Amino acid sequence: MKKVLIANRGEIAVRIIRACRDLGIQTVAVYSEADREALHVEMADEAYCIGPKQSKDSYLNFTNVISVAKMTGCDGIHPGYGFLAENADFAELCEEVNVTFIGPSAEAISKMGTKDVARETMREAGVPVVPGSKGIVDGPEGALEVAKEIGFPVIIKATAGGGGKGIRVARDEAELKKGVEITQKEAAAAFGNPGVYIEKFIENFRHVEIQVLADQFGNTIHLGERDCSIQRRMQKLVEEAPSPALSQETREKMGQAAVRAAQAVGYRSAGTVEFIYDHINDKFYFMEMNTRIQVEHPVTEMVTGIDLIAQQLKIASGETLEIKQEDVKINGWSIECRINAENPSRNFMPSPGRVNMYIVPGGNGVRVDSAVYPGYMIPPFYDSMVAKLITFADTREEAVARMKRALSEFVVEGVDTTIPFHLNLMDHEVFKSGDFDTKFLEKYDVMAETEEARQH
Amino acid sequence: MKKVLIANRGEIAVRIIRACRDLGIQTVAVYSEADREALHVEMADEAYCIGPKQSKDSYLNFTNVISVAKMTGCDGIHPGYGFLAENADFAELCEEVNVTFIGPSAEAISKMGTKDVARETMREAGVPVVPGSKGIVDGPEGALEVAKEIGFPVIIKATAGGGGKGIRVARDEAELKKGVEITQKEAAAAFGNPGVYIEKFIENFRHVEIQVLADQFGNTIHLGERDCSIQRRMQKLVEEAPSPALSQETREKMGQAAVRAAQAVGYRSAGTVEFIYDHINDKFYFMEMNTRIQVEHPVTEMVTGIDLIAQQLKIASGETLEIKQEDVKINGWSIECRINAENPSRNFMPSPGRVNMYIVPGGNGVRVDSAVYPGYMIPPFYDSMVAKLITFADTREEAVARMKRALSEFVVEGVDTTIPFHLNLMDHEVFKSGDFDTKFLEKYDVMAETEEARQH
Repeated sequence: MKKVLIANRGEIAVRIIRACRDLGIQTVAVYSEADREALHVEMADEAYCIGPKQSKDSYLNFTNVISVAKMTGCDGIHPGYGFLAENADFAELCEEVNVTFIGPSAEAISKMGTKDVARETMREAGVPVVPGSKGIVDGPEGALEVAKEIGFPVIIKATAGGGGKGIRVARDEAELKKGVEITQKEAAAAFGNPGVYIEKFIENFRHVEIQVLADQFGNTIHLGERDCSIQRRMQKLVEEAPSPALSQETREKMGQAAVRAAQAVGYRSAGTVEFIYDHINDKFYFMEMNTRIQVEHPVTEMVTGIDLIAQQLKIASGETLEIKQEDVKINGWSIECRINAENPSRNFMPSPGRVNMYIVPGGNGVRVDSAVYPGYMIPPFYDSMVAKLITFADTREEAVARMKRALSEFVVEGVDTTIPFHLNLMDHEVFKSGDFDTKFLEKYDVMAETEEARQH
Repeated sequence: MKKVLIANRGEIAVRIIRACRDLGIQTVAVYSEADREALHVEMADEAYCIGPKQSKDSYLNFTNVISVAKMTGCDGIHPGYGFLAENADFAELCEEVNVTFIGPSAEAISKMGTKDVARETMREAGVPVVPGSKGIVDGPEGALEVAKEIGFPVIIKATAGGGGKGIRVARDEAELKKGVEITQKEAAAAFGNPGVYIEKFIENFRHVEIQVLADQFGNTIHLGERDCSIQRRMQKLVEEAPSPALSQETREKMGQAAVRAAQAVGYRSAGTVEFIYDHINDKFYFMEMNTRIQVEHPVTEMVTGIDLIAQQLKIASGETLEIKQEDVKINGWSIECRINAENPSRNFMPSPGRVNMYIVPGGNGVRVDSAVYPGYMIPPFYDSMVAKLITFADTREEAVARMKRALSEFVVEGVDTTIPFHLNLMDHEVFKSGDFDTKFLEKYDVMAETEEARQH
């Protein structure tokens, strides 16, 4: 691979340009009219405007992206995360025009993107899925049969539903009977399909995911887990590797399951298998597979010493994966805080605008991945990421202390940021204990509690 | 240790504050009137002005430094490098007033600071020293006897000389005879002491040094070597770990010699034993020991995963060194470039002034240690350091490529910097080969050659 187009913006575009440059690969940036002043435009060897600020007409515009790639003689396109990263049609189009899509095949993206297909594929591959009915249930009686088998509470899901719609929890027989009837009616009305299925409802769990790497020859390894349980409305705010909750035995089992999951769809490139980890009963279940590089990939890089973007580029060049499973060693502890231009005291309201002063933390064990510079205007049209702040140390306690230190050094003036939230979090006893689940931020008002503590 | 005064400025003061914060130690900064706007002043928990811009009246002023330490209830003083770092009197004064000097004992500093005492101590401890006369020679005849034993060329040194004065190279008997006579006369006139001694003159060597760590209980280990052969007028510009020139066998021998050197003076804290490494004959000789933390310590931190400043703080707190020699593993490769505010095209002329724009490189495998921020005025009174840029990767080739990438990202506007020099160096075939010695910058005009190459 000699020249790569980066079909993305922000920190991940900068991250990919850096990896390309480390490997001596030429880079082509694309940008919307709102991103003329963006750092990825400045850093790439070439840069081309591909449309107006609206993503659908620029970063999501297949024709414009592909045209620039062909015009500039790129061998490959790296989609980053978001935008075109998990678009099977785009991946297919790349293949058709003979530009390497730096990621998995269109088929693998598609199989993992369709949730019921993925669930069935995983079950067949021996990857644990949440216990439930096989396909749709035969009315309340059928549902009850399944519920008795798997135990209450259960979750009733419309086959055709999605995005939180057509979902209902049932904690006993009465709720189940009523719930199935209502959901069937609602689903028939809303989606034209009354089919519902039943799954065990796991209330308290940790979000634990496994990083996998696979080449085109079927060599597939895992690089251990990341714990992403600190979430706000399903959005990850803090990630760490390893997970404070996993035993070595569970880690290995989960890793092997992730490898089976990837192999079941003929996976190639870097990918992440996300699991619901029921830490109370030490059981894990397939949640979904993200068929792309993830925002939180650096924590895995820090504890394994493996550069994931470099690996993606090498794999896309047709190289054989040079790392064997037994070579992968997890050393130390790494934490990532997503620093967003949002006001954590006002319900994380976005705060785009000009960053007047910008001083990033540095020194030992600190990594900053950012596309912001002093004077940069964060546009309101895209995500509100300012920087990913990553720390690394021997132990979790030291990585947390170092994060606190790094956060306290970070100067961002002109916009509100989530730095105060992260500072409070690093001081929170429950977070420090490592013993929490995905409901942490529902249970604890990190901003209010610390303000209260300050007043006392 | 609960509270530490940092008796320094610039990047090393920032580095020490960071390490203290990582460990939950309170920090007190001191500063001269010229450093009111300095980053270390901003970052420390407390900061006190201790005098005017002249170092002798501020950073070197024993009374003022100690007074602030006592007034603020500091348990320890970290001297960094330069200024008071190797001042045995200051270390002794700290002991007297019951403030821990974070470094070795006054006695160890003194023994290593006096060059002839150090040489004799090393010889007795079985550390190789450059072959030569024992003490002063008895005129030209005595010198010839030694020279015949050790072989030409030799170097004639006045016992009382120093700083490049009273030194003369002799390549044959005639030169030796004449040289001894002249040097004796000159030394008698200049220093009131005609004594001269003879040492083998090693023309081509690499500067290779060993990092050691020792606690107050005599536990002493080494953390491998750094190669600092890229020097300009004895000033190091680029350092790396490990050395491209050392075999594993020599590395171990040199490491063991460094441990013996440290133990011979009852060394405590972090220190560096510098060696003349005759890479042609695979022989090494004691040069001197730096009884302090060094500018280039981060490359060792990157390849060993050991935080040297944290270790200094722990040792100074009376802790037992927790790392055993067999725990020390060298992984990967790290390079440090010293980015100075100097114009490399104009004979490295200092270029102090206001830094208008400052964007530091980031991402995987990049570390920046700096005390500069956008808008900071680099004062002309101290050293011209802008930043230490450190990269880390699996191999030397990758670390060099990453350094090139990081240098190309680095934006410093308002002052000239050595970034163009380092960029050229990273592209220089001889540097890339790893096969060079301390005369590299005498042999190759890195700036001119690349400009010439550009024109062709």
